[in-house]
Amino acid sequence: MGRITVRRPVLRLGTGGTRARRPDTLAVEEPLEIRVAGRPLTVTMRTPGADFDLVAGFLAAEGIIGGPDDLTAMRYCADTEEQNTLDVALAPGVRPPDALLERAFTTTSACGVCGKSSIEALRVERPYDVAGDPVELSPKVLAELPDRLREAQRVFDRTGGLHAAGLFDADGGLLAVREDVGRHNAVDKVVGWALRKGLLPLRGRVLMVSGRASFELTQKASQAGIPVLAAVSAPSSLAVELAEDAGMTLVGFLRGETMNVYAGAERIGR
Amino acid sequence: MGRITVRRPVLRLGTGGTRARRPDTLAVEEPLEIRVAGRPLTVTMRTPGADFDLVAGFLAAEGIIGGPDDLTAMRYCADTEEQNTLDVALAPGVRPPDALLERAFTTTSACGVCGKSSIEALRVERPYDVAGDPVELSPKVLAELPDRLREAQRVFDRTGGLHAAGLFDADGGLLAVREDVGRHNAVDKVVGWALRKGLLPLRGRVLMVSGRASFELTQKASQAGIPVLAAVSAPSSLAVELAEDAGMTLVGFLRGETMNVYAGAERIGR
Repeated sequence: MGRITVRRPVLRLGTGGTRARRPDTLAVEEPLEIRVAGRPLTVTMRTPGADFDLVAGFLAAEGIIGGPDDLTAMRYCADTEEQNTLDVALAPGVRPPDALLERAFTTTSACGVCGKSSIEALRVERPYDVAGDPVELSPKVLAELPDRLREAQRVFDRTGGLHAAGLFDADGGLLAVREDVGRHNAVDKVVGWALRKGLLPLRGRVLMVSGRASFELTQKASQAGIPVLAAVSAPSSLAVELAEDAGMTLVGFLRGETMNVYAGAERIGR
Repeated sequence: MGRITVRRPVLRLGTGGTRARRPDTLAVEEPLEIRVAGRPLTVTMRTPGADFDLVAGFLAAEGIIGGPDDLTAMRYCADTEEQNTLDVALAPGVRPPDALLERAFTTTSACGVCGKSSIEALRVERPYDVAGDPVELSPKVLAELPDRLREAQRVFDRTGGLHAAGLFDADGGLLAVREDVGRHNAVDKVVGWALRKGLLPLRGRVLMVSGRASFELTQKASQAGIPVLAAVSAPSSLAVELAEDAGMTLVGFLRGETMNVYAGAERIGR
């Protein structure tokens, strides 16, 4: 488990021209290099902690793995004191990312997003039928999620610098919460936790995020089979388009009793 | 100029169980594929508009270009109605990103971030001496920047979904403001605007961002020769480390008269 926060001296300027040197608590951001069978795949800037979940969730979002059996081992690079490189061994028969990268490159060099609708070009193979998930949520349960997420964030009040993602059941029960300086990492950590427990697809579950809902976050939820994504802030246009296309429910500006339902309103009960 | 916002129908749940169908304004998010001499380099999810600035700023942050003469042409891919692919022609003698990618890969496959300090592994060649910039800022000027940035954001109040980056002089005069669903894109757009006007390095300037200060944003400021980065919210640990290492001033939690100075406090006057 890495450090989540670090103390640093700061100069604090207050009202009326006051100045004070004092320590401040910062969220830790460190690079993590992800390797598959020794080959570098990507580097992500993340808050240390739950790295195995982060990597599993990342690989699930990329469509590389679908369950715990697809991963045979994960280990930190041995020649370092800092735990900033993680190597993954995939099970026999799991298509490694090389093939995926090649496919991406082939598509892109031919025409890329040119001449296609954006949503078409960005579509990855969807492993689960999210549209068919019959879960129904009461507005009362949804209204309680932001507070529950906040309560579960042990670090937030100390740094103000961490995004959070929480996985809830349809009654508002918290299943997992993860934090990170990167909001996509927080979601990867939650999904990776579930994947490693053999819980995918996450039918009937709600993913709640502390910030905005981007295309990328919506796609990560869809790839994990999550039917409902709720965000404290605004969704983007492409997040809404993807939610509609995938048959997901997308809730934004979830603040107390008030919220906007951008897609999949049939899942919101009375 | 692309669409910055789009109208969508939403189901609005209000206090006391009220429900209303109404249109809502969303920030547009669309993919932009960046090509250099016809070869795909990367795809970024961005808000359309100021795409030329975005690409120029991205290439500057990557250390590929340093001024307007390094770019001989930028044009949208012709075989599409949507402006989602932008091809860049570099001037003779400008090292194309292939060489950079190869260097990155060589480093990574040898040891990557293993066995080095993070800051060392992530360091790119710094084109400007930011540490030697003698600019001094009054707390009064800094205190006014968040309001000035907000005022300059035409779109923010309509969508709540856009990050902003503003470039100011040491007297608080606004030089440029750009918005995007991605905060790194907003910064690339501002830096790219300046680069295309031949204004790099941005000595004596302040970059103000609407959210948090990450490593990536701090590095983009450093690569553009900007001595002061100010953020409404928290910086990460690595952002502070980089600011110290590069000799930048980093201000966080800039809210009215109160602010935290994490690095380079010698530039903050009385």
